[in-house]
Amino acid sequence: MAYGQTFPRWRVAAGDHWASYTEHAFVAGLGDGTLPRAAFLHYLAQDYVFLTHFSRAWALAVTKADSLSEMRLAGGILHALITEEMPLHVRTCAGHGIDEAALFATEERVENLAYTRFVLEAGHAGDFLDLMAALAPCVLGYGEIGARLMPKAGQTPYREWIEAYGGAGYQGVCVSVGALIDEAVESRIGAAPETSPRWASLCRTFRTATRLEAGFWDMGLTP
Amino acid sequence: MAYGQTFPRWRVAAGDHWASYTEHAFVAGLGDGTLPRAAFLHYLAQDYVFLTHFSRAWALAVTKADSLSEMRLAGGILHALITEEMPLHVRTCAGHGIDEAALFATEERVENLAYTRFVLEAGHAGDFLDLMAALAPCVLGYGEIGARLMPKAGQTPYREWIEAYGGAGYQGVCVSVGALIDEAVESRIGAAPETSPRWASLCRTFRTATRLEAGFWDMGLTP
Amino acid sequence: MAYGQTFPRWRVAAGDHWASYTEHAFVAGLGDGTLPRAAFLHYLAQDYVFLTHFSRAWALAVTKADSLSEMRLAGGILHALITEEMPLHVRTCAGHGIDEAALFATEERVENLAYTRFVLEAGHAGDFLDLMAALAPCVLGYGEIGARLMPKAGQTPYREWIEAYGGAGYQGVCVSVGALIDEAVESRIGAAPETSPRWASLCRTFRTATRLEAGFWDMGLTP
Amino acid sequence: MAYGQTFPRWRVAAGDHWASYTEHAFVAGLGDGTLPRAAFLHYLAQDYVFLTHFSRAWALAVTKADSLSEMRLAGGILHALITEEMPLHVRTCAGHGIDEAALFATEERVENLAYTRFVLEAGHAGDFLDLMAALAPCVLGYGEIGARLMPKAGQTPYREWIEAYGGAGYQGVCVSVGALIDEAVESRIGAAPETSPRWASLCRTFRTATRLEAGFWDMGLTP
Repeated sequence: MAYGQTFPRWRVAAGDHWASYTEHAFVAGLGDGTLPRAAFLHYLAQDYVFLTHFSRAWALAVTKADSLSEMRLAGGILHALITEEMPLHVRTCAGHGIDEAALFATEERVENLAYTRFVLEAGHAGDFLDLMAALAPCVLGYGEIGARLMPKAGQTPYREWIEAYGGAGYQGVCVSVGALIDEAVESRIGAAPETSPRWASLCRTFRTATRLEAGFWDMGLTP
Repeated sequence: MAYGQTFPRWRVAAGDHWASYTEHAFVAGLGDGTLPRAAFLHYLAQDYVFLTHFSRAWALAVTKADSLSEMRLAGGILHALITEEMPLHVRTCAGHGIDEAALFATEERVENLAYTRFVLEAGHAGDFLDLMAALAPCVLGYGEIGARLMPKAGQTPYREWIEAYGGAGYQGVCVSVGALIDEAVESRIGAAPETSPRWASLCRTFRTATRLEAGFWDMGLTP
Repeated sequence: MAYGQTFPRWRVAAGDHWASYTEHAFVAGLGDGTLPRAAFLHYLAQDYVFLTHFSRAWALAVTKADSLSEMRLAGGILHALITEEMPLHVRTCAGHGIDEAALFATEERVENLAYTRFVLEAGHAGDFLDLMAALAPCVLGYGEIGARLMPKAGQTPYREWIEAYGGAGYQGVCVSVGALIDEAVESRIGAAPETSPRWASLCRTFRTATRLEAGFWDMGLTP
Repeated sequence: MAYGQTFPRWRVAAGDHWASYTEHAFVAGLGDGTLPRAAFLHYLAQDYVFLTHFSRAWALAVTKADSLSEMRLAGGILHALITEEMPLHVRTCAGHGIDEAALFATEERVENLAYTRFVLEAGHAGDFLDLMAALAPCVLGYGEIGARLMPKAGQTPYREWIEAYGGAGYQGVCVSVGALIDEAVESRIGAAPETSPRWASLCRTFRTATRLEAGFWDMGLTP
């Protein structure tokens, strides 16, 4: 999936890390159904903690927006995370026998903490665009994974997960976020972003976040 | 209006500044209809700029929340500000002949800037509770003003403004924010907050924000 | 004074506000000695409060630096502010009969608060360069004022103030900060910064900070 | 070492994690000289990257200080880190054949990144005291390790490292930081801090930072 002009360029700049993340054994296991259920449930619980910090990162984006459209889009994603995606996790976990109390009591693993704090801190240290480069691998990588696994969704026990990210709703979010990033790039470093002195730094942030996403899957495999 | 346990205490601690703000000549003019229309429109345009920064402050609160309930309530207010209150300002201004382009081009007055940057910076420097003390005078003071003017609403050209803040919807927000503040106080400085070494500092933040609110009305009277 | 390549461009972009600040009646009164002593002492006390927040802004710059040289220079200025400039204010005020307890008890005026919170918040919302644009009018404007008044220093009761900013030590700081800003510009928006889409926004930040500096002098004249 | 009243309590609250950190195999290897040189040099290079972010965290503390004494102490530590400890690392690495260019090119390991971003983000999310709880395990744990290894310093190739942290200079820093934390505790949550509703959260922050310190040593053993 392209999701705009900037994302494909950042993806190339991430080199092999992009495949290490999006074609990880955990992802393959979701796709062919071989992922052990214990690993999936462990991942879900960690991902719930992840989403609380990811929501905070989108809230931070609202504080760093330069325009009403940036503010509205970031605010809209925050709203969807708090009112839809997090409750969906609670319901999915409940369906697998993990009640909300257990979910809340989840101890955050280091790989999880590393990722979310890196994203938040990239936002605090830099501007809106730096934060977008740190947020992009998660938002858009999940879109890419969901879209790729979508044709197989019916054959695995992880159908609901695949449809959540491969379905039209989430794919639409990815298109919007891709456009938001393109506009944030153009309004800050111009129409030829690769010629900007900031380009290398943005690619580095995207690449580090991609490495940390791969580490999150590694963690998922070791409950 | 009480709006919880903490707000009435902070209001007392603000001393005369509270009356200077909530019983300001601008407020009296809204209530009896003597406020010049030029002053009201000037205020509305400044208030639109104010609301963009006030939204950013509630987004900052999401990043500083300690619990899901704090995160959800702050996120809900942010959502209401972006999707309801700001568009209402655009419509109200349009109804008075100020189009959106003019609204966007409004130069922020110093009294306006002083207030919003103080609130945001209090949040960055401190924790969630410090930010609440800086946000409270605006949210709850407008509730108090709206409730007091409500019986007169039908007799003034400023009926819509009075009903927006005196009506059930906004009064409900004030009750929720009052409860949020009470919980934030209890979970951080305990059930006897006046005995906390932080109490004086929280009162000072509330008082300064109250002074800046009075300054905002002063500005409103001098288009 | 040029203090590098970027400052003269920002100064031009500030338009008449630059002269309103650097040629303000307060400044003229320092230069010819007609400034009432009460105004000067009032200014000194407010400026002491200002310096605590200005120090915090330079500390914020350390957290937002992209390179060791940026970190070291910002850290060096912070160190000089805390260990030299603030104690100098304490001594100067003591010499005029204001003891440290009175200095500490100074109530921050709105014009003072507006300026420092604007600078700090510009830093939180943006990146290192946005913060530099907000800090520049104070650091470099004082350098320019000091240098211009220097020939008259011997004839006024404000000689010590003039020599503090017009002397070789502070002028050297201004040259370093000018170079720091030039490098920050080049490493973020390139060698032709006026062509960057961020240029207008940086100029706007500089201009707003300049307006707030003029407001600080206005306040100085009204003890 | 006690280093004040608060640190010993937080240390107890960290449970076994404290020993996992301060009595780690890496530390034992420093003490008896069995640590492989490759592991030490790998650690030194990562620690250099760590110190840049640790300096940023102390700068953040300056922005969050409530008093001049907090501001001065945090600023003093920042100054010592930038002007003494980081150059010492450069010299030590040079003495072991790692030039500054190689040091700068060090890729930050995930365990390193996790720790520093956690500390910085704890500071952004909370207040000065939350940041102190996140900073304490590193500052004071190194003091404790240095003091314990000091009698053995002469018998190992890591004498210089041990003396840097076990010597009077660094031990004095630890006493000052311990006192700073005690004052920060008393001025925010009072003289009986264990009764404060924030106590559990502060202990949790300290414990997480301690776990991340142990992870840093783990990383040190796997170049």
